[in-house]
Amino acid sequence: MERLTTASSVRFRLREARKAEQVIGYVPTMGALHEGHLSLIRQAGSECGTVVVSVFVNPTQFNDAADLEAYPRDLARDAALAEEAGADLLFAPEAGEMYPEGFQTHITPGALAKPLEGHFRPGHFEGVCTVVAKLLNIVQPDRAYFGEKDWQQLKVVERMVLDLNLPTAIVSVPTVREPDGLAMSSRNARLSPDARERARVIPYLLDTAQELLESATTETRTDSGPVLRQWLVSLLESHQPAAQVDYIAVMDPETLHEINEIRDRALVAIALHIGGVRLIDNRIITAPPR
Amino acid sequence: MERLTTASSVRFRLREARKAEQVIGYVPTMGALHEGHLSLIRQAGSECGTVVVSVFVNPTQFNDAADLEAYPRDLARDAALAEEAGADLLFAPEAGEMYPEGFQTHITPGALAKPLEGHFRPGHFEGVCTVVAKLLNIVQPDRAYFGEKDWQQLKVVERMVLDLNLPTAIVSVPTVREPDGLAMSSRNARLSPDARERARVIPYLLDTAQELLESATTETRTDSGPVLRQWLVSLLESHQPAAQVDYIAVMDPETLHEINEIRDRALVAIALHIGGVRLIDNRIITAPPR
Repeated sequence: MERLTTASSVRFRLREARKAEQVIGYVPTMGALHEGHLSLIRQAGSECGTVVVSVFVNPTQFNDAADLEAYPRDLARDAALAEEAGADLLFAPEAGEMYPEGFQTHITPGALAKPLEGHFRPGHFEGVCTVVAKLLNIVQPDRAYFGEKDWQQLKVVERMVLDLNLPTAIVSVPTVREPDGLAMSSRNARLSPDARERARVIPYLLDTAQELLESATTETRTDSGPVLRQWLVSLLESHQPAAQVDYIAVMDPETLHEINEIRDRALVAIALHIGGVRLIDNRIITAPPR
Repeated sequence: MERLTTASSVRFRLREARKAEQVIGYVPTMGALHEGHLSLIRQAGSECGTVVVSVFVNPTQFNDAADLEAYPRDLARDAALAEEAGADLLFAPEAGEMYPEGFQTHITPGALAKPLEGHFRPGHFEGVCTVVAKLLNIVQPDRAYFGEKDWQQLKVVERMVLDLNLPTAIVSVPTVREPDGLAMSSRNARLSPDARERARVIPYLLDTAQELLESATTETRTDSGPVLRQWLVSLLESHQPAAQVDYIAVMDPETLHEINEIRDRALVAIALHIGGVRLIDNRIITAPPR
């Protein structure tokens, strides 16, 4: 696996792969690689001739300086893991390579970026869109892989690619979970043993949401969305009253509008602070056939 | 010359040219082609193996609905002119192809887009950047040609391409002028014979700016920028007192900051309404060696 730090060297290196008509797959990451990232890299490897992984802790998508500071960084470890998972090229630029002096152009996403993370992390998705567009333009991949754990990010990026006619197919990959159901996240490493135990409430709520939707009580209600949401809020309060909730939302998975009657499927999205660590997760729940 | 109306057909058509390693040149236009556009197309033809011209009157860069409505449209004529100048492919999409339902992602330029046109046409450069990025992503040219008449647009687009790592070289082409010096513009056709005559004041001011800078009076002054600007304002008032001025500015050509002492070169940029038509023009003036 090659390691490169400049945009021009990445472009130069990929010219050969492109000439040879290899399919180029790309996995953008902020490092701190875990099984979730590795599943993206492995899937890229199974579908593409050349796999590029980037590691860049993008400062512009952090609205909280302390969060940026605390974000784990270990490039040597990330490089070893990426290579083992099948990466052919690792792009790990410095911030100055991505945002040179005079940088001033931004990408502003629309309605999809307003609720959920967009509401609680002002400017986050503008930072995400801008850096993802930059990275896509540097790598020019045929396929780029994004995890479903960051569902809203996936939808915002899909929309950006469509709206700006970026010549890359966005491939979404299911969330990888710990044996007890907790979604893989670089932030999990910051959980105390006690908080790690309490964090199990998140997958518990998501599994319960699916079960509640299947129950006879909700399936015929025209307000099944708000009712389900309220049940989940009450359930969290009874199981983990100390958890600080940013949101528990029941939404249309494509428009991210809140939905009243869940006809076929819905996104349940959750953001909680547990033991000082902010965790997000989601699940697409499906209504039983009537 | 082929005529195409969809992004996917353009991409498909250009795949062959790209495989054959032809240099792809691109000239984005809003139609109403004149000698200025044709000089861009001819230069592209002399430097590239395949020349793409687009004709798209982009609604999002018009802040004034009447201006959009009045913008001249004659695709048959434009197609004939583009072909004659050397275009191999004409891309003329409908608005719905460029902005389908749900479109919501925009590109927001920075400080370069604030003064001059950005000040007088709110939202204009956001519209320009968004559509230019889309078009560049559709055509994926090696080189894209922009006229120096829209100097600020040129600088904003250059910055966007740099900031977003778009893999296209921006080539700037000198302004083409009528025999009496008036810059070619699609809007010139809307001038009455009387207004057309009065519009000659614009190149007169720009030529005079160069001569004034060469004169002994300015060359050693630390406030030569504001002094020159004031002379031009007075000159306009004495020659065409009825002209409505949006701006007469003396600026650093790269940063578009107003400059006090003109050391080597400066941008003189002018926007006037003459006979109900808004005209813009500019000239880079150079100070004599001291």
